Amino acid sequence: MDIGGTNIRVAVFPGIGNTPLTLKKIPTRGQETPQERVIGLISKLWPREHSVLAIGITAPGLLDPRSGVVYAAPNIPEWRDFPLKSIVSENFGVPVSIGNDANMAALGEWKFGAGQGHHDILYLTVSTGIGGGIILDDRVVLGWRGLAGELGHVTVDPNGPLCSCGQKGHLEALASGPAISRYVSAQIASGRPSLLPSSPPPTAKEIAQAALGGDPLAIEALKKAGEYIGKALADFLHVFNPSIIILGGGVSFSGQLLVEPIRAAIHRHVISPQYTHNLKIATAALADNAGLLGALTLARLDTPPG
Amino acid sequence: MDIGGTNIRVAVFPGIGNTPLTLKKIPTRGQETPQERVIGLISKLWPREHSVLAIGITAPGLLDPRSGVVYAAPNIPEWRDFPLKSIVSENFGVPVSIGNDANMAALGEWKFGAGQGHHDILYLTVSTGIGGGIILDDRVVLGWRGLAGELGHVTVDPNGPLCSCGQKGHLEALASGPAISRYVSAQIASGRPSLLPSSPPPTAKEIAQAALGGDPLAIEALKKAGEYIGKALADFLHVFNPSIIILGGGVSFSGQLLVEPIRAAIHRHVISPQYTHNLKIATAALADNAGLLGALTLARLDTPPG
Repeated sequence: MDIGGTNIRVAVFPGIGNTPLTLKKIPTRGQETPQERVIGLISKLWPREHSVLAIGITAPGLLDPRSGVVYAAPNIPEWRDFPLKSIVSENFGVPVSIGNDANMAALGEWKFGAGQGHHDILYLTVSTGIGGGIILDDRVVLGWRGLAGELGHVTVDPNGPLCSCGQKGHLEALASGPAISRYVSAQIASGRPSLLPSSPPPTAKEIAQAALGGDPLAIEALKKAGEYIGKALADFLHVFNPSIIILGGGVSFSGQLLVEPIRAAIHRHVISPQYTHNLKIATAALADNAGLLGALTLARLDTPPG
Repeated sequence: MDIGGTNIRVAVFPGIGNTPLTLKKIPTRGQETPQERVIGLISKLWPREHSVLAIGITAPGLLDPRSGVVYAAPNIPEWRDFPLKSIVSENFGVPVSIGNDANMAALGEWKFGAGQGHHDILYLTVSTGIGGGIILDDRVVLGWRGLAGELGHVTVDPNGPLCSCGQKGHLEALASGPAISRYVSAQIASGRPSLLPSSPPPTAKEIAQAALGGDPLAIEALKKAGEYIGKALADFLHVFNPSIIILGGGVSFSGQLLVEPIRAAIHRHVISPQYTHNLKIATAALADNAGLLGALTLARLDTPPG
């Protein structure tokens, strides 16, 4: 199961492989509570002709995979210190594993996507927010209370804009989709020519399209974001020394116009070429399925089939 | 063995405990090459009445613990892509394990020092440089090529001073001993009153003593460094979520005048109090022995006694 702020997706997988037997998607919010929708959706897809070995769940926000408690989830305000794992486990009588969205996407990419064959992976997702998942020695880095991997919340410019978390100059405040959009919108408002309309503020997707069409302001905005991302990634190389960086999330679909500035900034900011020697920089391969396939991988690791 | 830029220390330990049977220290540089001094010192201390199970070595600089190659070591220019592990192993016919100084100090503190009982440790050493060692799930984080843990080389202020590595605004450039010294020296030169002499530039140790004596400029310099360190540590909490931060190195002996600003900055800069909940902030317990006891721990992990 992949619980997002917008949609909940659930699929039934066989003991091996990553082809679902059944798959269903519903909006996260509706007439019932999110908890009722989660339980209802699993019940609806519960297979009659097979036994269920385990349930893996990808959930948003700050959570502790060991205790199974969601501390806080964006767009699901009902879930504060919410014991998701035990509630699902008690309802269905099978082992339940949970992980946060970026960590599970990293795990999905490690097993089935761009990270196959790598043991030390840095996954960075850039969309409305910036999140991360770190795999070292084939294991997801969780930290003491399961809160590791918040790679968007590192200071890149102490004089930078306010972040969604309330701190100043974080990577997320400078290079996420909304940050790119705010920059372009402010530049147009101050008289910069652009193919983009000044109002409503263009989305990161519209900016990426304009950049592909040659709009200089859109190209500059992606380059600026890419430089911030690449600089933070150089720091992360010094800290983790991964063999691959996987870029996921909506913004990374801007392609080379974002990836090239990222690559250039990484090479400019590492303290030694040892850190970029044979380093692979890839875009995510699983798109929307990363969270679901990460949950599948986690459930199989925690409760090995057969 | 603990090989530093200044001294080489070697000790013989029994199968359990951390009390050396014999211990010897010599300067790293002398008439012979550093390689000859390393081999000579081990030969000199080789026990006649006991058999040797394994050798653990702490070495400075960038190195790969898996291949045993030192890429580059400060103060030992002869060692470039130097196969330290295989040279020692071939000379003495026993298994050899090597690790870099900050990683080994973290391992020593985990086993015998301030980190006992913790599984997720962030060790930061602040002296001439700033280095780090990360322990997650009771294992030292090495990364793909063994280069992880360079926590001093993360950008704290993109407009900050040049770092020893050539990059700008790294933590090391803003909060190491020489950085504190440069700041105080510049302030005195510009007319700020201080108990400290203007020339020669005061060392970090002299500044710490003046701060303890109430000198406002010295106190301010430590506070400033502590704020940079605390801000970087808040970022590392988001990334690793450790249960303890251990501060080592000469500068950390400034005590509360440095630790309090660090603690305050950490609390000010975390995105959620979940990251500081039950977090311990401690100073290193092993002082100069951390590297030697880390090497001992590594050798025992790699080649378990009996």
